Amino acid sequence: MRVEHDLLGERVLPEDVRFGIQTLRATENFRISGVSLAQFSDFIVGLAHVKKAAALANHELGLLAADKARAIATACDEIAAGRMHDEFVVDMVQGGAGTSTNMNANEVIANRALELMGHGRGDYQWLHPNDDVNRSQSTNDAYPTAVKIGVYLSMQRTLSAMGELKAALADRAAAFADVIKMGRTQLQDAVPMTLGQEFAAYAVMVGESVQHLRRAGDDLLAVGMGATAVGTGINTVPGYAERVVQKLAEVSRLPVRRAEDLVEATQDSGHFVQLSATLKRAAVQISKICNDLRLLSSGPRAGLGEIRLPAVQPGSSIMPGKVNPVIPEVVNQVCFQIIGYDLTVTLAADAGQLELNMAEPIIAFDLLHGLKLLRNACSTLTHRCVLGIEADRERCRGFVEGSVALATALIPVLGYDRSVAVAAEAQRDGTAVRDIVVRNGWLAREDLDRLLRPESMTAPGPAADPGRARVGTRTRVPEPRPTEDR
Amino acid sequence: MRVEHDLLGERVLPEDVRFGIQTLRATENFRISGVSLAQFSDFIVGLAHVKKAAALANHELGLLAADKARAIATACDEIAAGRMHDEFVVDMVQGGAGTSTNMNANEVIANRALELMGHGRGDYQWLHPNDDVNRSQSTNDAYPTAVKIGVYLSMQRTLSAMGELKAALADRAAAFADVIKMGRTQLQDAVPMTLGQEFAAYAVMVGESVQHLRRAGDDLLAVGMGATAVGTGINTVPGYAERVVQKLAEVSRLPVRRAEDLVEATQDSGHFVQLSATLKRAAVQISKICNDLRLLSSGPRAGLGEIRLPAVQPGSSIMPGKVNPVIPEVVNQVCFQIIGYDLTVTLAADAGQLELNMAEPIIAFDLLHGLKLLRNACSTLTHRCVLGIEADRERCRGFVEGSVALATALIPVLGYDRSVAVAAEAQRDGTAVRDIVVRNGWLAREDLDRLLRPESMTAPGPAADPGRARVGTRTRVPEPRPTEDR
Amino acid sequence: MRVEHDLLGERVLPEDVRFGIQTLRATENFRISGVSLAQFSDFIVGLAHVKKAAALANHELGLLAADKARAIATACDEIAAGRMHDEFVVDMVQGGAGTSTNMNANEVIANRALELMGHGRGDYQWLHPNDDVNRSQSTNDAYPTAVKIGVYLSMQRTLSAMGELKAALADRAAAFADVIKMGRTQLQDAVPMTLGQEFAAYAVMVGESVQHLRRAGDDLLAVGMGATAVGTGINTVPGYAERVVQKLAEVSRLPVRRAEDLVEATQDSGHFVQLSATLKRAAVQISKICNDLRLLSSGPRAGLGEIRLPAVQPGSSIMPGKVNPVIPEVVNQVCFQIIGYDLTVTLAADAGQLELNMAEPIIAFDLLHGLKLLRNACSTLTHRCVLGIEADRERCRGFVEGSVALATALIPVLGYDRSVAVAAEAQRDGTAVRDIVVRNGWLAREDLDRLLRPESMTAPGPAADPGRARVGTRTRVPEPRPTEDR
Amino acid sequence: MRVEHDLLGERVLPEDVRFGIQTLRATENFRISGVSLAQFSDFIVGLAHVKKAAALANHELGLLAADKARAIATACDEIAAGRMHDEFVVDMVQGGAGTSTNMNANEVIANRALELMGHGRGDYQWLHPNDDVNRSQSTNDAYPTAVKIGVYLSMQRTLSAMGELKAALADRAAAFADVIKMGRTQLQDAVPMTLGQEFAAYAVMVGESVQHLRRAGDDLLAVGMGATAVGTGINTVPGYAERVVQKLAEVSRLPVRRAEDLVEATQDSGHFVQLSATLKRAAVQISKICNDLRLLSSGPRAGLGEIRLPAVQPGSSIMPGKVNPVIPEVVNQVCFQIIGYDLTVTLAADAGQLELNMAEPIIAFDLLHGLKLLRNACSTLTHRCVLGIEADRERCRGFVEGSVALATALIPVLGYDRSVAVAAEAQRDGTAVRDIVVRNGWLAREDLDRLLRPESMTAPGPAADPGRARVGTRTRVPEPRPTEDR
Repeated sequence: MRVEHDLLGERVLPEDVRFGIQTLRATENFRISGVSLAQFSDFIVGLAHVKKAAALANHELGLLAADKARAIATACDEIAAGRMHDEFVVDMVQGGAGTSTNMNANEVIANRALELMGHGRGDYQWLHPNDDVNRSQSTNDAYPTAVKIGVYLSMQRTLSAMGELKAALADRAAAFADVIKMGRTQLQDAVPMTLGQEFAAYAVMVGESVQHLRRAGDDLLAVGMGATAVGTGINTVPGYAERVVQKLAEVSRLPVRRAEDLVEATQDSGHFVQLSATLKRAAVQISKICNDLRLLSSGPRAGLGEIRLPAVQPGSSIMPGKVNPVIPEVVNQVCFQIIGYDLTVTLAADAGQLELNMAEPIIAFDLLHGLKLLRNACSTLTHRCVLGIEADRERCRGFVEGSVALATALIPVLGYDRSVAVAAEAQRDGTAVRDIVVRNGWLAREDLDRLLRPESMTAPGPAADPGRARVGTRTRVPEPRPTEDR
Repeated sequence: MRVEHDLLGERVLPEDVRFGIQTLRATENFRISGVSLAQFSDFIVGLAHVKKAAALANHELGLLAADKARAIATACDEIAAGRMHDEFVVDMVQGGAGTSTNMNANEVIANRALELMGHGRGDYQWLHPNDDVNRSQSTNDAYPTAVKIGVYLSMQRTLSAMGELKAALADRAAAFADVIKMGRTQLQDAVPMTLGQEFAAYAVMVGESVQHLRRAGDDLLAVGMGATAVGTGINTVPGYAERVVQKLAEVSRLPVRRAEDLVEATQDSGHFVQLSATLKRAAVQISKICNDLRLLSSGPRAGLGEIRLPAVQPGSSIMPGKVNPVIPEVVNQVCFQIIGYDLTVTLAADAGQLELNMAEPIIAFDLLHGLKLLRNACSTLTHRCVLGIEADRERCRGFVEGSVALATALIPVLGYDRSVAVAAEAQRDGTAVRDIVVRNGWLAREDLDRLLRPESMTAPGPAADPGRARVGTRTRVPEPRPTEDR
Repeated sequence: MRVEHDLLGERVLPEDVRFGIQTLRATENFRISGVSLAQFSDFIVGLAHVKKAAALANHELGLLAADKARAIATACDEIAAGRMHDEFVVDMVQGGAGTSTNMNANEVIANRALELMGHGRGDYQWLHPNDDVNRSQSTNDAYPTAVKIGVYLSMQRTLSAMGELKAALADRAAAFADVIKMGRTQLQDAVPMTLGQEFAAYAVMVGESVQHLRRAGDDLLAVGMGATAVGTGINTVPGYAERVVQKLAEVSRLPVRRAEDLVEATQDSGHFVQLSATLKRAAVQISKICNDLRLLSSGPRAGLGEIRLPAVQPGSSIMPGKVNPVIPEVVNQVCFQIIGYDLTVTLAADAGQLELNMAEPIIAFDLLHGLKLLRNACSTLTHRCVLGIEADRERCRGFVEGSVALATALIPVLGYDRSVAVAAEAQRDGTAVRDIVVRNGWLAREDLDRLLRPESMTAPGPAADPGRARVGTRTRVPEPRPTEDR
Repeated sequence: MRVEHDLLGERVLPEDVRFGIQTLRATENFRISGVSLAQFSDFIVGLAHVKKAAALANHELGLLAADKARAIATACDEIAAGRMHDEFVVDMVQGGAGTSTNMNANEVIANRALELMGHGRGDYQWLHPNDDVNRSQSTNDAYPTAVKIGVYLSMQRTLSAMGELKAALADRAAAFADVIKMGRTQLQDAVPMTLGQEFAAYAVMVGESVQHLRRAGDDLLAVGMGATAVGTGINTVPGYAERVVQKLAEVSRLPVRRAEDLVEATQDSGHFVQLSATLKRAAVQISKICNDLRLLSSGPRAGLGEIRLPAVQPGSSIMPGKVNPVIPEVVNQVCFQIIGYDLTVTLAADAGQLELNMAEPIIAFDLLHGLKLLRNACSTLTHRCVLGIEADRERCRGFVEGSVALATALIPVLGYDRSVAVAAEAQRDGTAVRDIVVRNGWLAREDLDRLLRPESMTAPGPAADPGRARVGTRTRVPEPRPTEDR
């Protein structure tokens, strides 16, 4: 057991813990979500990088003795390597704008450094959590910077999972390159395309999400270190802000840079809102893909049934043989969660007042948790669904053959009005589009065969020659369904 | 080790687990949030109640042998008493519309019942997870019903914490009943009131939230048991739906009733949206109270400083002596989270298609987690903040004394235009409102003293007598600041 | 031309307008949305009711001369009858917590009353916008009360449109009562039901929305009249609050009542949040119905095609003959708008600070506009879509016949495991479920015919008699697809 | 009067309108919001640009005769110059994925072109809305492209208003460069700064919003022209897609480019979500600034009162002399509206299904309306508020003098623990920080004067020399408030 004290008095701590009195109080004050910092290792690594960078900068500026700086740096390296994460015990959802998280880091690092220096835990006269580990810093610059690093690192892993998803979709696009199917707009039969084109579009969509997340992630690397309490740099020396940012770039091996204005950087959560919103955009796009996968695999009989998803578990407790699209379903739900998180981040960002935003902890929580959910969802989608998708080629082609929708290809030859009349008659009587055109003597069957070949409709083609159409002078076609007009 | 099989093949399970092959597959398919059913005991209790009620109803209708029904009921009672919750291992965030949760319950209950009957785990020829435990049910009625029961139970505990909060606010209202302060509208000085009136309003606000949550919670007790797969009651016998609901009411001791239309009940998530939205309303109201507590305690010097919140931890890693409103801050953030969850629930509800909503698991997760967060937040707010709030009576009264805002009380006597002129002059020159009125000879000082007594402004009062004002015939007061008009 | 003055100076007004200097300033300050009060007649009627009720109460309490009260009441009656709405020129989106709206009403009413009394416009010495029309009131009680009345009135018309929609859905349910179709869960074929059951569920869903909106609307009728500036009733006499509420009930013919606590009522927007959230719930439910209508009418060939929506316009500028579900589509979009409005209302409600919420104008705007949109959407949906929906009976039945999904009905007789094996074989080989059962000798064909009759699956039925199944002792069926297991 | 026909039959149109039968039907089908296309001139210009570009490309590719192309181009130029906008009568909120908007444009342009060619309106045999004006296009590429152009143009004007706001804030920052004030974090007194630093941060914040909107706007210029119905380019000739995009760049004078994948571009609304989200970010940042302006100007007596906003209208109908921050208030509400719109856009984007998103019209509406609101709000904020803001220098400085918060500057000299003790004593007894330090003999008064000079705290300073502190060896200070510890 050891005793520590702070502004409010003394508290007894177990000897074997490295965190101190302020962490202890925080664990008592914030029994909220039950989710501690320890569950977000990227974030803890971010804290370690920040503290090491500050120690190195302070040392170079003559503000921290070599032995202290060395001990702090080693402690931070150990944490960055994955050790002592279980000492980060504060609830992610906390008041105090991250002070408890910052002090949790300061205390664990100080006590580990004291050990490395041969002192006992709590012997802060040799190395102090505030005076040394937190030197030239405030929670208000150290915490958001660590969040930024942590979110950035976490996002790299999410982007990697998204990259796999994109590759899997592209793989399927290649496999389905020659599967002719009916394209649908507004859920109505439109014009032919290939299933490969459909999956290629999904791959591009995921790629765009990746690209925009990278861009938003890059914004995060503008950090406010050196701002201390409100952005004025109180209790720092000239040159520290530049130095600590340079050190942070070295320590983290990330292109970290200084924010444009430190007062602004201290109070504004704009970059977090932007990243969250971009994550939301990714969620919307991935959700759309999953919606389509569920639609395209609906059936097996009374649905579209164009593709088959791999069966990964029985679908029903009562309906034998039913297999459900459970993987896209769970991904859809993750996307809903991320969109909800974006609202929480937005509300939290809007809660900034004057020189600080007190709601940064919930922003950190929702961003880090959202990135984790999306990573798991993409990985699951890739490996338990997309890679195993198969096409029902016959069914796909069957929807195209004889469809009224083929009349679209007649427009360049017959004009819009006459094509409409053909389509209406085909729809009304069930006659094939082809037969109507031939019966009217508008086109020869061989021209029609070429024109209405589904494959030729899946890309721009040679200009249809209206001259080949043996179309009369009649410009007003008979009203197809005059009686329905009101 | 034991072997189980399903539609997709065989799998080996450890002998010591009671869950079966379908649960195993689900744990592999859904590695998403890392939060298992086991973390939500109310929900597991809900599942146990549903399964017991079904067993009893099936037995009474001759569809389940007495020994099986007895074993199932006992297993359910054990679970409801808190046992075996660690066997509910599926991720809360799952595809399949809750099938995996339902099967997790069916399998654990079946194997526990088998034990109670003296059989081995997995010997389903004696008692089957689907044929017996799930008899007359489908995931599509059993799962949402269990969610409803679970959410209802969880909400009772949250309402209890909210009741405590209301009582604490009322306690402070009583303590502050005679603290005169300046009321503020649009953050501008308005008219006097008491700090007690302010806190009483907060208590009423929380009370309204409680009342509306009760109402929305009551809606949840209309359940769709008997609907089975799509609401038509396939694989049930006539009378079962009524019987199982009656049994569920007995088992759960809650006023459970049958939904108006079982097809509707199976596909609609309206009641969940309503509850979530009402939870959001509570979050907005509690967030407003916390915003006010932070405003009223701002300072200590450069803020309003009308109240002091108890200091629960040091406020800063760099600013000595700073104490922050960390408890209201964490509660604000919880409120943001709940508002975000409401969006997720809304999106999930909107995802219903045809006979079912596949996104019920995320609805369940966000409701249950939101209720937990709000419960912890209210309890924390009550015990670590509200009960210890103190008023700075002198500062409160100081803001009122001599304030220009007192001119409001002159209106019934002097009229709006002349009162405006008085206020404008007082504001411009710093002269006291009282002095201006006396100097103009409009009212005697003793009448003024009565009229401008702050206490008398905190409630309706006797009609001011315009006759007492010695006001001349001048109806146009001189323009107070004509030069500012553009 | 006439000259008026206020706190800030003098302004010239055209002689023919009844609004005054404060309205003029507001039109200049708030050039924001371009949507004036005049577009929301229900709201203006609400303002008129409030001002008349206050005048009557003031008169009865001896605070307003009879001739003034009479003139004000007549002016209000004229406005409530639809006159002078074009004089309400302030932008709906305004700062000042509604002061400009309140003053617009005070000024128009004062000048109309002056006319009725034989005075000129602007001769406020005879009747004053503040001293007389606004007597015993503040914007802070008069404005939100008028919003509540206005929203309530507007909602009645929306509920009427929703009632029509419900009736139209019920009409279609009756027409489709005998149309057998495949029910779908998670977009996969589930079990048979009737199209009538599906539409009946929609009707019930709309009915629930109506019922909940009525409940939330009733909450709105608890008003804060008598609160004046901050809820303390400053500048009112004892008994006024009760009297004005009673008068308001008489004038509006609505069961208006006094709020529980006037300080709370002045600052809290909870009831608006609740109503908005309930509107959102309605939007989610109606959106779900529209999603289904679009799914069920997808095709005509490559979709579900179970119903046909009336064609109300050509569907495409390029695809001849295409007819799109444009009416459900526009309703879906209205629902998205309302859900967005709910967020705006939530944010606005959360912006309340201390004794008032400055953001009430945007709440009023979004509620009133949302109610209008939903009204128009429901009416359009009813008359241009639902009433003209037709079923494709053959297609509906065709999806059911021979479906693997029929195996569900075998469970009570064959048990879950054997039914799964049947379904798996049917799915794999395309063999009919019926043939597999007969070939195995498990049931006689006549029993099967009864059991698998789709109609008999659309409701609870007599307990299947497992005794009739000639099922052997084999309890482990052969693994259907062992090779797929990984 | 003239008669037109379409798929559904014939309709009579007034002779003096240029829109045709499809527009007429759309106005009847979509009586929803009452807001027609005509209210969004940027969007109509976008439509004109698209149609002209297509005509020019078609002509160059030999698909459209010179006289037709010329007539169409001239008609488009006229529209782009602001003529005939009142002919765009369709409701912005419409079903059909924009088909009605596209046809409204096609019909108006066709009839105007017919006039220019000397023909009568409706004589479509000479120039046809579909065959000629819509040639090589579909609604599915023309409509979203026009929306993109329209939104882009509208945004330029919004960015201009934001630029003015930024400049106004920077102007105030310069004016307040030497106003010393107390910085506040978590609403608690923190450390000194200048009011100029505060306003400079706001200017930077607005600048960041501008920069990110530009970036998101640039994404919009990747258009899907050439995609036609589903992205495959059906009914176009090879090379058309490139040509029409080049023409569009020329016509619009914007750096328009071709989207990466036309199938993806046709179905994905990602860029709209991104822009909407970035608009939301701007709203959050501007809302934060307005929140601060209201806080900083709160009072005049019982608030912070550090700045004075210009009085633009009387603040209250009952409280004389009250002036409210009505301009920031209305801007806050606009921000709430935009955040709500972002949710609507998100929901609409998520509604995309297969090859198209039917909900683009509501996306267009909310983006265009949001941009308009934000433009008006920023302009109002600049000219009616920010430029007239004045500082209360004495009050600002008064909050700093003698504040306990000054103890922060002692840390580098006295260490954290001793500084905490000083702050605690100062706070408890009201003794000045300075006096406590001197009394303990820790620092000489002249060193203290230098150290505690507020101006020196507003920037990094020379490293404090701990050696100058005459601090003893006592490392544990007495517990400041031991009795409060629980």
